[in-house]
Amino acid sequence: MAEQQIGIDWDEDFDRLTPSQFFRKNKQMLGFTGKIRSLTIVFHELITNSFDACEEAGILPDIDIELMRVDKEHYILRHKDNGPGIPEDYVMQVYCMMFAGSKFRNIQSRGQQGLGCSGCVLLSQMTTGKPAKVISCYKEGDEIKGVKMKFQMDVENNRGILMEREDYPAESTGVCIELQFKDVSYSMAEQGAFEYIRRTMIGNPHAQITFRDPTGHKYIFKRAADIVPVQPKEVLPHPKGVSADDLMTMAKNTDKRRYKSMLTASMSRMSNKRVDEIAEMTGIDMNKRPKDITFAEAEAIVHCFKKMKFMAPPTDGLIPIGSDQIEKGMKQILQPEFVTTITRKPVTYAGGVSFIIEAGLAYGGNSGRKVNEQRKSEIMRFANRVPLTFDAGSCAITEALKSIDWKRYGLKDLDNTPLTLFVNIISTQVPYLSTGKQSVSPEPEIVQEIRQATMKLARQLQKHIRSKRAAKEKEKRSKVFEEYVPVIIEEAAKLGETGVPEYQEVLAKVTKRALAELLGEKVEEEVEEEELDAIIMEEFDEMGYAVDEEHSNLNFEEEDDEEGEFEE
Amino acid sequence: MAEQQIGIDWDEDFDRLTPSQFFRKNKQMLGFTGKIRSLTIVFHELITNSFDACEEAGILPDIDIELMRVDKEHYILRHKDNGPGIPEDYVMQVYCMMFAGSKFRNIQSRGQQGLGCSGCVLLSQMTTGKPAKVISCYKEGDEIKGVKMKFQMDVENNRGILMEREDYPAESTGVCIELQFKDVSYSMAEQGAFEYIRRTMIGNPHAQITFRDPTGHKYIFKRAADIVPVQPKEVLPHPKGVSADDLMTMAKNTDKRRYKSMLTASMSRMSNKRVDEIAEMTGIDMNKRPKDITFAEAEAIVHCFKKMKFMAPPTDGLIPIGSDQIEKGMKQILQPEFVTTITRKPVTYAGGVSFIIEAGLAYGGNSGRKVNEQRKSEIMRFANRVPLTFDAGSCAITEALKSIDWKRYGLKDLDNTPLTLFVNIISTQVPYLSTGKQSVSPEPEIVQEIRQATMKLARQLQKHIRSKRAAKEKEKRSKVFEEYVPVIIEEAAKLGETGVPEYQEVLAKVTKRALAELLGEKVEEEVEEEELDAIIMEEFDEMGYAVDEEHSNLNFEEEDDEEGEFEE
Repeated sequence: MAEQQIGIDWDEDFDRLTPSQFFRKNKQMLGFTGKIRSLTIVFHELITNSFDACEEAGILPDIDIELMRVDKEHYILRHKDNGPGIPEDYVMQVYCMMFAGSKFRNIQSRGQQGLGCSGCVLLSQMTTGKPAKVISCYKEGDEIKGVKMKFQMDVENNRGILMEREDYPAESTGVCIELQFKDVSYSMAEQGAFEYIRRTMIGNPHAQITFRDPTGHKYIFKRAADIVPVQPKEVLPHPKGVSADDLMTMAKNTDKRRYKSMLTASMSRMSNKRVDEIAEMTGIDMNKRPKDITFAEAEAIVHCFKKMKFMAPPTDGLIPIGSDQIEKGMKQILQPEFVTTITRKPVTYAGGVSFIIEAGLAYGGNSGRKVNEQRKSEIMRFANRVPLTFDAGSCAITEALKSIDWKRYGLKDLDNTPLTLFVNIISTQVPYLSTGKQSVSPEPEIVQEIRQATMKLARQLQKHIRSKRAAKEKEKRSKVFEEYVPVIIEEAAKLGETGVPEYQEVLAKVTKRALAELLGEKVEEEVEEEELDAIIMEEFDEMGYAVDEEHSNLNFEEEDDEEGEFEE
Repeated sequence: MAEQQIGIDWDEDFDRLTPSQFFRKNKQMLGFTGKIRSLTIVFHELITNSFDACEEAGILPDIDIELMRVDKEHYILRHKDNGPGIPEDYVMQVYCMMFAGSKFRNIQSRGQQGLGCSGCVLLSQMTTGKPAKVISCYKEGDEIKGVKMKFQMDVENNRGILMEREDYPAESTGVCIELQFKDVSYSMAEQGAFEYIRRTMIGNPHAQITFRDPTGHKYIFKRAADIVPVQPKEVLPHPKGVSADDLMTMAKNTDKRRYKSMLTASMSRMSNKRVDEIAEMTGIDMNKRPKDITFAEAEAIVHCFKKMKFMAPPTDGLIPIGSDQIEKGMKQILQPEFVTTITRKPVTYAGGVSFIIEAGLAYGGNSGRKVNEQRKSEIMRFANRVPLTFDAGSCAITEALKSIDWKRYGLKDLDNTPLTLFVNIISTQVPYLSTGKQSVSPEPEIVQEIRQATMKLARQLQKHIRSKRAAKEKEKRSKVFEEYVPVIIEEAAKLGETGVPEYQEVLAKVTKRALAELLGEKVEEEVEEEELDAIIMEEFDEMGYAVDEEHSNLNFEEEDDEEGEFEE
């Protein structure tokens, strides 16, 4: 059959889409599914973009958001920041061109895909047909320039179409964008826009957000820490994280004339001496022009990288929140009975991409989620300080936390404990699982780090619960002593036909010492640090997370103490 | 601080990426994470592409796959199909251009993104630097032409670069592609390539796959059903599923001169009479040129669509596997004690996108997964007959199945029952959550349908378990009668000083009848169909899946019986 019917009319049916057309057809891939989620994603994209812009310019973020209700499921959103602004020539590229942006460098930033802002404009246009309105005030030389623009997205050509433009009298730098949306809703629920802002504040105590909600109520989320944010630096790729294909791409795009100078200029920890060693091992002429390198040669070089020892990647490009700040944030929001936090040392995944895991655990008080009057556990996932609200199921953080044997730490299970677990992954290249940036790929090294961090916190919680229990027991035993000893003494006095001695003071001393001895063992019955590490590695093995030896961090040279050290 | 340090050097730092460059940096978004998963995704992309091509041309798919091991984690994959082939001019566009393809029409196909094949070529090139080799044999008029090509992907320009080309003596149509991969591994595990093929066969009993694994072992997965696959048809969008932005896009791209003819030509169920009604309701001049329509007018028209009654979308574009076929597949692979399957009627999500849910439930035998000698439940997710292997957590299918109160159906819980649950969603537009196409967005209508289908199956399982239990009980009671009645009769005979009568035959009759009566009630104690629907709706309400009334299927006109009916 069907010999005559050819299924595809190639000239007619074969299409080439622009990125904007592709995402217009697949807006769920930008995270735009559901009315509540869509609005939360818009908040997420605009806030993270403002934070990134502010921090790169060394400015404490101060953001003003106003959400006005026009009609049922129809809103106007006005979002204003105090960042460095966007030069006029780039405004429409930032907001209307997909896969364009300044986030493709090897720098720690919340955004990294060049999709977020243009996605918001796309959603606005798709649901309302209304143009975007932007005021951008930016420095040009010593002057502050201002421009007010109105534009639409030309989806067929992945670019903006300017509709109106006028000069704007600028006083200070910053961007204000106004967008309209239909088919979205504002919600106070866990996945709604309000909760998103609240969680953002835990990860960003240096920021300030003023939010006027659709009822006109004004919330001011005050800056908790007046710390000038450290500016993240662009870091060059580390040889251990570079693939042959990366080398080929570098060779294509370099302005260096020789392979040698390309290698030293494009990677961290790569000296002339190192290049000479590689030349010797591989026999490759390092004076070749970069464009003449073959894939096989690139592979040979990467093979050397794997065998050589290098200093760990520079980590001054990574700026964690810091365990003190996380503790402050969690205490302020959760009023827990117990809280413990940790910021681990930087390590790497995929061989050479550095990352830092930070974690916090709060117990009791308002920790956890309230479900039918019972408090259950709650996981707060963050990446580069940004709350991850959706797609928890497939995320490295969820996977790591669920894989821990919580019984080992004296908890029945993870679900039914009044716990809030906070995990933040800091990296110049967070491996997001999808364009919606809501979950982190479960790379083995990342899962391992989260497990280790969390297990250390769990051990602290166990100590806390144990000493609480011990204190209770102590009290109980004290009562036993204090109730019965007097009786014994009195009866003994009667039997001995003598007077009752003054025993109260002595008894108090004895019970304290006796109990300390009795309970001391239990309280001190702690696993030593090395033993703990052994337990961790053992659990780790059970989970099957064997770390590729070539890729493990064991292969790095020891480095100076100042470098790569963070408070723990 | 930092007044002089502007963070971004716009001219230097602002980049515009091609789709290929974007996915080169974010290959995990194409599903390429982990060595095992990456290879499975390659199999997935090539197999689904071949199936789609064959079916569109009305050909029974017959695929030959050979995986050769070159070295540790280094393989050559040769994939050959008997499809209609790709015309020479389109070969490099199919394999090297991202966001290009023939899958953007409103037609049921496994692929729909124009990313799959080019993603495989990208991964091959990134890991090995080797070119792709393709032989394509295709019809041109009555002649079969053949071409052999070797090409690379030009990532910077999102296109192919031809390296070699020669004529190939073609006998029959089809495509053979050979790619090399490093850093991938072949595995027999649940998420490995072999299991992927096995599951594919459940969803595609009309296909045949021959697979030679790296050890040289040849597996032939034989065609289970020699049914010529029905060719899916391109269906026009239904008015209930169209947005104002869709109308604007249609207006931009139409070749019609008037709005009226554009509307009737671009949508299903849209007659001249209907357009006149809309004109009357909205006051819009339907003789306008399409390009003159404003967004507000488009909104007004969509508003009318929402209020009007239309016949349900045509569903001859949807080709389910069929409950018989699913049952055959599950029996063959699982040898279950009990199996039940269902193919539901077509319904719609997002107002007007039709879809069909098919489900199967197998119990006992080899159903479920074996975990430490215990059999646990297993969920097999499919979309347009393609197995979904990863990202189960956030998928509509997982969400629906986990939300069912399994205790209602006599099961302890979902996890610890030896069950295999199969769910397939058929649609011209499956709302995938990510570019890796491994999970379906939990649209409320889709979740509802999966729940309803599965609950009906669960009810069947409950009946089966009950009658099994009843049969056991019956046997037990029969024994009681048969053991004790003779004793009573004999003792009675003794007391009455008379002989023991011939009671065996009578007893057998009595116990059968008596027990049938005793147990009959229990066996028949079934919930009627309407009552079941009430239970379903009640559970549904509890879950908070209120279906938007405007979007529900209640608003469709009744249609002829022939239309949209599938075996159930």
